[in-house]
Amino acid sequence: MAADPDPRDPLVLFMPSGKRGRFPVGTNLLDAARQLGVHVESVCGGRATCGRCQVEIQDGSFAKFGITSSQDHISARGGKEERYDRVRGLPAGRRLSCSATVLGDLVVDVPQDTTVNAQVIRKPASDRVIARDPAIRLCYVEVEPPDMHQPLGDLDRLKAVLARDWGIRDPVVPLRLLPGLQKTLRLEGWGVTVAVHQDEDARPEITALWPGLHNSAYGIACDIGSTTIALHLVSLLSGRVVASAGASNPQIRFGEDLMSRVSYVMMNPDGRAAMTQAVREAVNGLVAKVCAEGGVDPDDILDAVFVANPIMHHLFLGIDPTELGQAPFALAVSAAVRSPAAELGLAANAGARAYLLPCIAGHVGADAAGAVLAEGPHRQDRMMLLVDIGTNAEIVLGNAARTVAASSPTGPAFEGAEISSGQRAAPGAIERARIDPGTLEPRLRIIGSDLWSDDPGFAEAAARLGVTGLCGSAIIEVVAEMYLAGILSAEGVIDGTLAARSPRILAKGRTFSYLLHDGSPRITVTQNDIRAIQLAKAALYAGIRLLMEKQGVAAVDCIRLAGAFGSFIDPKYAMVLGLIPDCDLSEVRAVGNAAGAGAMMALLNRGHRREIEETVRRIDKIETALEPHFQQLFVDAMALPHKIDAFPHLARTMKLPARPDPGEGPSDGRGRAGRAERMARRRRG
Amino acid sequence: MAADPDPRDPLVLFMPSGKRGRFPVGTNLLDAARQLGVHVESVCGGRATCGRCQVEIQDGSFAKFGITSSQDHISARGGKEERYDRVRGLPAGRRLSCSATVLGDLVVDVPQDTTVNAQVIRKPASDRVIARDPAIRLCYVEVEPPDMHQPLGDLDRLKAVLARDWGIRDPVVPLRLLPGLQKTLRLEGWGVTVAVHQDEDARPEITALWPGLHNSAYGIACDIGSTTIALHLVSLLSGRVVASAGASNPQIRFGEDLMSRVSYVMMNPDGRAAMTQAVREAVNGLVAKVCAEGGVDPDDILDAVFVANPIMHHLFLGIDPTELGQAPFALAVSAAVRSPAAELGLAANAGARAYLLPCIAGHVGADAAGAVLAEGPHRQDRMMLLVDIGTNAEIVLGNAARTVAASSPTGPAFEGAEISSGQRAAPGAIERARIDPGTLEPRLRIIGSDLWSDDPGFAEAAARLGVTGLCGSAIIEVVAEMYLAGILSAEGVIDGTLAARSPRILAKGRTFSYLLHDGSPRITVTQNDIRAIQLAKAALYAGIRLLMEKQGVAAVDCIRLAGAFGSFIDPKYAMVLGLIPDCDLSEVRAVGNAAGAGAMMALLNRGHRREIEETVRRIDKIETALEPHFQQLFVDAMALPHKIDAFPHLARTMKLPARPDPGEGPSDGRGRAGRAERMARRRRG
Repeated sequence: MAADPDPRDPLVLFMPSGKRGRFPVGTNLLDAARQLGVHVESVCGGRATCGRCQVEIQDGSFAKFGITSSQDHISARGGKEERYDRVRGLPAGRRLSCSATVLGDLVVDVPQDTTVNAQVIRKPASDRVIARDPAIRLCYVEVEPPDMHQPLGDLDRLKAVLARDWGIRDPVVPLRLLPGLQKTLRLEGWGVTVAVHQDEDARPEITALWPGLHNSAYGIACDIGSTTIALHLVSLLSGRVVASAGASNPQIRFGEDLMSRVSYVMMNPDGRAAMTQAVREAVNGLVAKVCAEGGVDPDDILDAVFVANPIMHHLFLGIDPTELGQAPFALAVSAAVRSPAAELGLAANAGARAYLLPCIAGHVGADAAGAVLAEGPHRQDRMMLLVDIGTNAEIVLGNAARTVAASSPTGPAFEGAEISSGQRAAPGAIERARIDPGTLEPRLRIIGSDLWSDDPGFAEAAARLGVTGLCGSAIIEVVAEMYLAGILSAEGVIDGTLAARSPRILAKGRTFSYLLHDGSPRITVTQNDIRAIQLAKAALYAGIRLLMEKQGVAAVDCIRLAGAFGSFIDPKYAMVLGLIPDCDLSEVRAVGNAAGAGAMMALLNRGHRREIEETVRRIDKIETALEPHFQQLFVDAMALPHKIDAFPHLARTMKLPARPDPGEGPSDGRGRAGRAERMARRRRG
Repeated sequence: MAADPDPRDPLVLFMPSGKRGRFPVGTNLLDAARQLGVHVESVCGGRATCGRCQVEIQDGSFAKFGITSSQDHISARGGKEERYDRVRGLPAGRRLSCSATVLGDLVVDVPQDTTVNAQVIRKPASDRVIARDPAIRLCYVEVEPPDMHQPLGDLDRLKAVLARDWGIRDPVVPLRLLPGLQKTLRLEGWGVTVAVHQDEDARPEITALWPGLHNSAYGIACDIGSTTIALHLVSLLSGRVVASAGASNPQIRFGEDLMSRVSYVMMNPDGRAAMTQAVREAVNGLVAKVCAEGGVDPDDILDAVFVANPIMHHLFLGIDPTELGQAPFALAVSAAVRSPAAELGLAANAGARAYLLPCIAGHVGADAAGAVLAEGPHRQDRMMLLVDIGTNAEIVLGNAARTVAASSPTGPAFEGAEISSGQRAAPGAIERARIDPGTLEPRLRIIGSDLWSDDPGFAEAAARLGVTGLCGSAIIEVVAEMYLAGILSAEGVIDGTLAARSPRILAKGRTFSYLLHDGSPRITVTQNDIRAIQLAKAALYAGIRLLMEKQGVAAVDCIRLAGAFGSFIDPKYAMVLGLIPDCDLSEVRAVGNAAGAGAMMALLNRGHRREIEETVRRIDKIETALEPHFQQLFVDAMALPHKIDAFPHLARTMKLPARPDPGEGPSDGRGRAGRAERMARRRRG
């Protein structure tokens, strides 16, 4: 609109984006924001009725920009804004940008209410605020009444005003909306709020209509995990997370892990349909829950973004996942999926949309894509390792120049399966362990209590909670401590000679166990447990090492551990065990449900959809099964922390046991690797 | 592909389009056609398996273009073409253009199999062949098998080959197709036929998928009239009409005419839903019928085009038509409507599309738009009058420079209602009548017999069929003949003094009747019948006259009478009566179901959709109710043939009765016009 800016015009600076420009005195502040590409919400189209375009004017001198911002540099409240304040209340210091004009230099704060509950979804590593630009917007318009002189249909006149007031040209209108259109238009004197979906280069689409001003629009971001489903209800207008909920994936009744679910489908004619129905019902249960908690009408849910691993992704979409259970692990679809949410049975507005992030490969799903989007290896220059550990570990390594991804068949050992005393994380499970290298006596902590086992009061807590088993994160810690205490050799063999020194070393046939807790049940770590952990960690490390080779790096700059498991393990012990490669420990960070955070980003900003679609296209996908080298990497990774690789950063923080000569491998190395390889094959069907 | 054409290269000329260009020796003939924008169908993508790309090479010298075309100027049949001929048979003289290359100058005939059953749908006035370019095309592709090195999903690889082989980029894929995709791809070794819908500037959409080569695609063109529904099943690949069928509109049970159906909706809460269901079921009944007749699987129906008047249009779409029953007669939607056909309950392929032509105004529907598309006033320079006579007459007048449209409330008199002996066209109804001006004796013809009443054998035919009443077209003829015989005055008064001369003039209270047939029933034309016809024809003529004034013309160059009524009336008598304005009689033509012909054009060529959408936008819509002048035009049109307007062309073909001085109108003219005006208002709610 403005020609060349006049250097004498006031400078307007919007925070937190920092975008700025000069505008003539009298420029409408909302218009100024839009000209700069600053997203300021507005539903009512500048009528000072929706209250969505609130901003705060900063007072003071901003030396960096050479300006002084002041309340005197903006027009005084007019009648409409006063009326809004009377009727709906305007917080102190807030102004409606649609009703204010620029009088002088300004620093304008656009409130970012994107407060994500940190216990549920961690913010992206950079603590970036998610700039809002959702695929759904609400547009209030006042349609011209019908005119016999120019007999355009009601819908056609609605389209005309949408083009004029909002720049939305020739939207698609689903047939579903036509029967109610004429009544809706007439209910509030031709004023109507239109929900418009606009994503990618497709034509905009009208997805919902309400009479008069409709001032709420919500979306859901949902991570469908094999074990748990996490869902967040978010205001698309403010970015606020209104409520969050989680539930077990009810598909567990068809099979504990992914491959057993695929088997169920292969063996039961109705298995696919039953599992699709189960997961969709669970999602709807969570939708009902967050709506009740947030006091939100499900009919106001207009968009939904999902992430999931490939098998969950296919089952949610109603696709038979059998192909994913066998080579070549063909996805039915790898690109992002867009659909009316109704076709997924979502209990939301009839016109709600759904978006599933792209899958990276047959074992690296939309959940991994979500984690990539949230953590952004592709947005920075350092070599970032991003790991999400489950039955398959999804591994991404890269930076802005190049990103590679793979999955590794870690198996269920990290989840407590295949471990003699393993259990899911629940009250009473041991979650922390320390072993005195001198006495070989352990100290423990159990879930549900903050006390260590040598603290006063622990016995009472233990009596109350029970000491029932070892959860996944504790297994890492115990095995690492056994190694640090000298109970375990670098090859992972429990040193039976120590039985002479400590009653905790128990003989069990030709091998030995370590007695962690002498109660009921008796909790031991057996040689078999150690082997299971070694196989799992070797698979993960070998996958990481393979990607490091593909990137041509000997070390990574930072590590992000995603997912529940990643949140609970101590990075130091993960490194002692050789689960992850050496790295500055301050650069290793658990990032929680990064996949869900990515879903949230894609929900609140359609630009992030483009970003992840483009990024996934550029990711080099590595299939470990096709790499002849992988087996050798696997064998080398069986040792603690590794047969060859050095851990210099870790060694600087603690004294590591002396390493054996890398020349002499454990006598049964080949056989063990062979077993590992067979396991890997079996797990992939 | 080719750079500047070399003038020494062979010239290739395609008929009937006449498009031509020079191509190097060795150019593939199908490629040459495509480079020139000549539509030659191909499903198999040049594999010589679908047989759709057949052409005929002309032999001989074509002086106009300075070339000689010969079978020697095209490559000999290769192995693939021979195989096709062996397996499926290639008609003599036909070649597969995908398998032939240019060796010298060629005149290539692209067979146009668009033979429309003339008894059902007349071809557009110009007898133009409908160039095929349907919105749906079938594309056979061979998808790359999955590759673990590049783990793109099956759909993603399908999209890649669609882009490479057919230039179709990033199509929308409905969720519905994903569950079956992987099996479909694997059934015939990764060969699959894709139905792609591409219309307007929207992204293409995959609407159906079949394993291997699928070589049939059909569409339906359907005209939903108030009284009858007519439907045609057409091959989208050849343009051939496979079968046609018609049925009564079952909504008749809710109300005979449009306004009574609107009243039914207003007074019955479930009325709208019942009528929508009734019409959709009737359409599906016709679909089943044409599929059975044509031996076509309904699952092969991939597209459907509908025309209808505004109230039928709304009811078919599930929209309450109440607004159309009262000023300002607001359409819910006037632009063309696109929808998945499944949302209209159509019993066709689950991915079939539907297209409804735009409505012109509240009383000028998609049927009128269809007639405009078929007859094309906007495609030529002469002033064309296009009239479709029903309860509301839809009137279009124009040429390439400007087109205007209106409707006139003729009422149901032309359909035989409001006429004492009126009936629908059926065996036994009088359809033709002549009156001897000397004896005043009539001669008749009845539907079901070709004999006139003075032919030998008529009595037997009449005894067999019965003589039951007067159908709409005969009423026009009888009244016109009564006028020509001097029984009727120009004011429309039956001359009672003639009762002395003929026993056929019967006194009936203060007015008189004419006895047309003295049987059981006794068929008379009463003074009231005459008045009803006068009101109806005056409404129509006044509407036409209004449009002529808007166009600033005193006469029209040609007249097209659309619809069943227009097909059966004799243009000469319609002119004698003053139903239509004066015109060279050789320029007056009945065009049958022009609306249906327009639907067919929009089905077979998506360019015609753009054409009619653009044309309708440009049409000036005239609302007669808003024209103060209309009442005077109405009053003037009550006289036979008209109070003022001359009929010079008509007068040259027959002796018309002397006209009264235009100064002295009939004494009750004002009152009569007043009644007419009241009628018009009542009919519009």
